[in-house]
Amino acid sequence: MNNSMVRIVISHIMKIEAAFLLLPCVVALIYGEKEGFVYLAVSAGAALGGFLLGLKKAQDKTLFLKEGCVATALSWIVMSIIGALPFYITGEIPKFEDACFETVSGFTTTGSSILNDIESLSHASLFWRSGTHWIGGMGVLVFLLSIVSLSGGSTINLMKAESPGPSVGKLVPKIKSSARNLYLIYAGMTALETIFLLLGGCPVFDSVTLAFGTAGTGGFAIKGDSVAGYSAYIQWVITIFMILFGVNFNVYYFMLIRRFKEAVKIEEVRYYLLTILTAIVIIFINIRNLFDSAGEAVRHAAFQVASIITTTGFATVDFDKWNTTCKIILIMLMFIGACAGSTGGGIKVSRFIITAKSIGKEINSYIHPRSVKKIIYDGKPAEHVMIRSVNVFMATYIVVLAVSVFLVSFEGEDLVTTVTAVITCINNIGPGFNKLGPVCNFSFLNGFTKVVLMFDMLAGRLELFPLVILFHPKMIKEFVFNRRKKAGI
Amino acid sequence: MNNSMVRIVISHIMKIEAAFLLLPCVVALIYGEKEGFVYLAVSAGAALGGFLLGLKKAQDKTLFLKEGCVATALSWIVMSIIGALPFYITGEIPKFEDACFETVSGFTTTGSSILNDIESLSHASLFWRSGTHWIGGMGVLVFLLSIVSLSGGSTINLMKAESPGPSVGKLVPKIKSSARNLYLIYAGMTALETIFLLLGGCPVFDSVTLAFGTAGTGGFAIKGDSVAGYSAYIQWVITIFMILFGVNFNVYYFMLIRRFKEAVKIEEVRYYLLTILTAIVIIFINIRNLFDSAGEAVRHAAFQVASIITTTGFATVDFDKWNTTCKIILIMLMFIGACAGSTGGGIKVSRFIITAKSIGKEINSYIHPRSVKKIIYDGKPAEHVMIRSVNVFMATYIVVLAVSVFLVSFEGEDLVTTVTAVITCINNIGPGFNKLGPVCNFSFLNGFTKVVLMFDMLAGRLELFPLVILFHPKMIKEFVFNRRKKAGI
Repeated sequence: MNNSMVRIVISHIMKIEAAFLLLPCVVALIYGEKEGFVYLAVSAGAALGGFLLGLKKAQDKTLFLKEGCVATALSWIVMSIIGALPFYITGEIPKFEDACFETVSGFTTTGSSILNDIESLSHASLFWRSGTHWIGGMGVLVFLLSIVSLSGGSTINLMKAESPGPSVGKLVPKIKSSARNLYLIYAGMTALETIFLLLGGCPVFDSVTLAFGTAGTGGFAIKGDSVAGYSAYIQWVITIFMILFGVNFNVYYFMLIRRFKEAVKIEEVRYYLLTILTAIVIIFINIRNLFDSAGEAVRHAAFQVASIITTTGFATVDFDKWNTTCKIILIMLMFIGACAGSTGGGIKVSRFIITAKSIGKEINSYIHPRSVKKIIYDGKPAEHVMIRSVNVFMATYIVVLAVSVFLVSFEGEDLVTTVTAVITCINNIGPGFNKLGPVCNFSFLNGFTKVVLMFDMLAGRLELFPLVILFHPKMIKEFVFNRRKKAGI
Repeated sequence: MNNSMVRIVISHIMKIEAAFLLLPCVVALIYGEKEGFVYLAVSAGAALGGFLLGLKKAQDKTLFLKEGCVATALSWIVMSIIGALPFYITGEIPKFEDACFETVSGFTTTGSSILNDIESLSHASLFWRSGTHWIGGMGVLVFLLSIVSLSGGSTINLMKAESPGPSVGKLVPKIKSSARNLYLIYAGMTALETIFLLLGGCPVFDSVTLAFGTAGTGGFAIKGDSVAGYSAYIQWVITIFMILFGVNFNVYYFMLIRRFKEAVKIEEVRYYLLTILTAIVIIFINIRNLFDSAGEAVRHAAFQVASIITTTGFATVDFDKWNTTCKIILIMLMFIGACAGSTGGGIKVSRFIITAKSIGKEINSYIHPRSVKKIIYDGKPAEHVMIRSVNVFMATYIVVLAVSVFLVSFEGEDLVTTVTAVITCINNIGPGFNKLGPVCNFSFLNGFTKVVLMFDMLAGRLELFPLVILFHPKMIKEFVFNRRKKAGI
């Protein structure tokens, strides 16, 4: 394995994180908080570390798929540990494992929190906490690729490892411009949401952090009651932007370059919107009686549906108190997730479409054994490789889910808490049900369970394989062997 | 579609059921119960119906896959309705929907009961109830094929529709001898279990009905506390026979004809036994403290594991009171199920092996992109068609499960009851958790929920496609169109 390139990638990531860590310093300066010094120190440390790690250049710049996976998985782990340091050093999160949990939850845009009292955090830390969502949402490696030309052409493997969905969202032939376009759209939409929130009288700090949480489909809020305390207008703005950030970003790109026909062709988005609409209607019917007006019921139904399917995890009500039909719908949405090529998590709508079409094809082959219809996706025949990779993804997903549920069961909590803990983490959502409902938090879980859930959050965000590859016995062996060979042992 | 052949198949099935219905008459004669007359009348009715339906011969004897599916699905529905009549007419089950539920649960070898007081039933009805497990276990169409030569060579489609597992358990080239061999092994093993039970001092009636319940991996017992009241010896005998009936019957066939090498080659059985052993160890560790001796804990762990993985559903303790780790293990076993080509339900071990190997292949392709290893199953490269059909089966399974859970959620029960109701029915197990635990029953559910669960039981037993095909809009249209064409409309 090309360890040097992995090292170079990590060194870049550390430098980028160092730069991002300066933003909370600015916030601390504005609010006159001493926590700013901690962020400054951690930023300096990350920059130095990144510089030292990058000193020796790599001779071979090739990045194969496995190196792409390992570099991505390791980058995310390093990034999370560095990102956790300020929380721990300032003493705002006393236990290091909790600080790591909160940061992993932030970067992976999960939004599950171990904080009992969110509002006691400094502005700098609240800003950093929500900021991790924004950084993790579109992906830090995609960001890296948008500013640096790493090597010949194999950086596609980094993007492949970090971008969600069955196919890589390669917009234009050049990776660098592709990544840059994604980030421009992302930043523009975040700014737009901030403006809409400000127009509704939302304070500046709240607007920016809420926009971060929405854009990354993260879910960390700066209030203990999530988004329940804001006005109906603000809740509607967030609802709409959650849905927008769950859309395949290719749509926006095509719209920007005025290729509307191609934008409309993306099947996934139609099914995504249809699913949202159906879920809102079903939940509305079931919760209508809980609220004074139909308008209020629609708003809460729409907000929760948008929040869960996009895997954001904000809440305006305690949906754990809703009836079983609503809960079942929400759990299904947790699995479905947003579109590929969006900032959302979950299995992704496109994978379900391809699976549904495979089922349709099989049933058809029972009825008309001689027909040889191909599966059509986005107007083109679906490649065999794509269908297979969707199947394998689903299977791997079920295995990771099952093993995690088994491990989390040692915690001794009830079935619903145990199972939904894993579901909400692997799908990068935030709240679960029962003891992990939207008004609860993850602090009471033991260290082992938190480690399992951190793995799940990372596995979910990176779509399983990078993390599975990283911890694969063969890769560990290869890594050790490489080092020994170099050391001449 | 060849409606005539479907009609002929159903006519045969009715005649076979008429014959089986004579057995409870004999039981009633022995115990001097007047319920025997009801069974006699229903038997006569079924025989007459079968005779009339079969009067007009079919001109075209071809049975394509779709006709095989439709004939199978319809046969099972007709069989269940006829089988429910005695319960209803004798008044032992006052509601017809409940009588149907109990019979579907019997034939599909689920073993979920709506009876509050099992022991109040007549011997004739208890015998018939357990007998449905035996008839449904190996399959009534397989039985039909073992005694009748239906047509040229396309009866394989009937067997394909009824036999569990990804490939048809065709033992010898001739369907008829293949089906006969299966039934001989099945009957022989049932007799063997009965003898072992009798040797342990188990009463004759109990021995026979328990053997029926074990052989079909059904789970109906004749006592309110299932198998809890019997001696440790009897519980061990049942444990071992449950495991044996969950084994791929090809193993027994190969052993009978002394081809031991081929018997050992069947990979599925090794993994099946390994899974059982692992599950017993994990559960034993978790329940050790609940029992006085280690021996007792092992016995209860082994019994419950065997009962759940083979989808039998007998119980010796209320495992709903065990801790979450045990429950998670049991739920996983519910999904895994027994071997293909056995009488057990669930997804089947072989499908999981093939899926696991697909995952392994994918991970390997990340690490060694140039390797082109094939998936090896049972010592041979696995065919692409088999892998695809396993994937589609799993996907269809998830869809049927999700839709059913949604429909059952209207019942308004809690999450665990709702979800496990569907899991236990679609996998043909019997008990679920919470309000459907091993000491509870299904009587409190409303009619709509019971219909959904009946569909799930049948879909699970026939491995989804026959039932999905039967209710497919295209098939219904074709059926109607066929009739109209014949009537000259």
